[in-house]
Amino acid sequence: MSALLDFERAAQLAAATLRHARRLGVRPLAAAVLDAAGHPLALLRDEQASFLRPQIATGKARGCLGMGFGGRELARRAQAMPAFFDAINSLTGGEVIPVPGGILLRDAEGRLLGAIGVSGDTSDNDERCALLAIEEIGLHADTGDAQG
Amino acid sequence: MSALLDFERAAQLAAATLRHARRLGVRPLAAAVLDAAGHPLALLRDEQASFLRPQIATGKARGCLGMGFGGRELARRAQAMPAFFDAINSLTGGEVIPVPGGILLRDAEGRLLGAIGVSGDTSDNDERCALLAIEEIGLHADTGDAQG
Amino acid sequence: MSALLDFERAAQLAAATLRHARRLGVRPLAAAVLDAAGHPLALLRDEQASFLRPQIATGKARGCLGMGFGGRELARRAQAMPAFFDAINSLTGGEVIPVPGGILLRDAEGRLLGAIGVSGDTSDNDERCALLAIEEIGLHADTGDAQG
Amino acid sequence: MSALLDFERAAQLAAATLRHARRLGVRPLAAAVLDAAGHPLALLRDEQASFLRPQIATGKARGCLGMGFGGRELARRAQAMPAFFDAINSLTGGEVIPVPGGILLRDAEGRLLGAIGVSGDTSDNDERCALLAIEEIGLHADTGDAQG
Repeated sequence: MSALLDFERAAQLAAATLRHARRLGVRPLAAAVLDAAGHPLALLRDEQASFLRPQIATGKARGCLGMGFGGRELARRAQAMPAFFDAINSLTGGEVIPVPGGILLRDAEGRLLGAIGVSGDTSDNDERCALLAIEEIGLHADTGDAQG
Repeated sequence: MSALLDFERAAQLAAATLRHARRLGVRPLAAAVLDAAGHPLALLRDEQASFLRPQIATGKARGCLGMGFGGRELARRAQAMPAFFDAINSLTGGEVIPVPGGILLRDAEGRLLGAIGVSGDTSDNDERCALLAIEEIGLHADTGDAQG
Repeated sequence: MSALLDFERAAQLAAATLRHARRLGVRPLAAAVLDAAGHPLALLRDEQASFLRPQIATGKARGCLGMGFGGRELARRAQAMPAFFDAINSLTGGEVIPVPGGILLRDAEGRLLGAIGVSGDTSDNDERCALLAIEEIGLHADTGDAQG
Repeated sequence: MSALLDFERAAQLAAATLRHARRLGVRPLAAAVLDAAGHPLALLRDEQASFLRPQIATGKARGCLGMGFGGRELARRAQAMPAFFDAINSLTGGEVIPVPGGILLRDAEGRLLGAIGVSGDTSDNDERCALLAIEEIGLHADTGDAQG
């Protein structure tokens, strides 16, 4: 059963992600933190980020939770099964964005707490800022990386 | 004319599919059983399955009934005619998910009773759990397998 | 925090609702049982029920969970604030069906487990069948009735 | 031209709103802060709030910005012209939720900075928590109140 992530911690996580982007000089980001059921806890958009970023960030996090994998595993599967992922996205209105930058959040025992999705720069930079923030906040990241 | 599958038997079929998944140790599943007209009789989601699974399971069963073939035949056709399947999915809002795990249900005389769709693990494991449940319940499976 | 309702119990609850309708001679029903986050656990449609019933049953349960009230309280509020409910339904694609027959499910300590929505006969008969099934299964019903 | 509200201040405003709700003992809230163009800066949902609240909070803020009035003025107009507001909501997919709890945010010179929308308790309580937070953060509220 899922443990609980509260809105204060979710807001800290999203804000830390946007601040890391500014510090590192990558493009302005949006970050969405969802609970384990896919409902929003915190969504922040850097006021300089373009306006589709919040929706894409939310989609990255929703897709990870909806399918049960981090974004890197979704990306691998989408490459292996393009027709399946095309059909899922027609079916769900684009709920599954299969790229890095969607990360499952777990506690120390591995229980699912929710997910974060980030959008604004390259997928690798999006993910990098989220990973720094997740470590800072003391959660565990599941990116879907086979080595991770 | 189609013969009739009642809700009690449809519920047994969906429940048996989810129980086989647990017994075999595959990932938690959702299973959707539709009547021959494509309308739901029973949809069950293992409470541990991720939340897009019911929609995908329903889509697998809808696609089989909507096109008149089991999922394996849909998969072959989607590979041969990707533009056709892309267009169908834009047209229908993703009603056709062309992978194994969608199975037409027939009676002993081959008459169409409905379909089951399963999602949660690999397509092969999804289909395997459904086939065990279909046999248990005494129905006949049409997976679209050329040899089947 | 929400406690857990498993798919076996959810399926029993939905099946018991449909059986009470048959026993009482009311019109054939559909019943949807959702977890506390609004995701489906069990959806059953009497094979004699008309085909929009599953969607309406799901909408009744979703609306209760999405707004945090049983269907009778939603009905009172919709009567007092029609413009608000019209707007919500345009916004959410009809997620809030403000009539009896949507019931929050609680455990003995009052914790939210999920909701059931029922459709097929009058709202009062829909609710009556669900209440009999909830009692049979040993859960606690929150209909939003001010006296309840 | 609109002055700028940054994401840090927007996040503080949303968080302060949710904290006032907890302190006052009203129901758990969601709060959405949008920039003057209607795009999200900060959306927070108390982890105890029901799941449609973020969408409704966003709708309240969007409607104020989209029409150029605070929620109290929208409510008055919806009561005077129900057919117009029904048509707007069909047209826009429910972008205009005409009730208190949507508030335009202005700077000391009256320039538009964005809007906040709040949902979870009665419209009056939603608005009350937002007004306390707006004062705390040092912005100016335009609720659409004729006396305001």
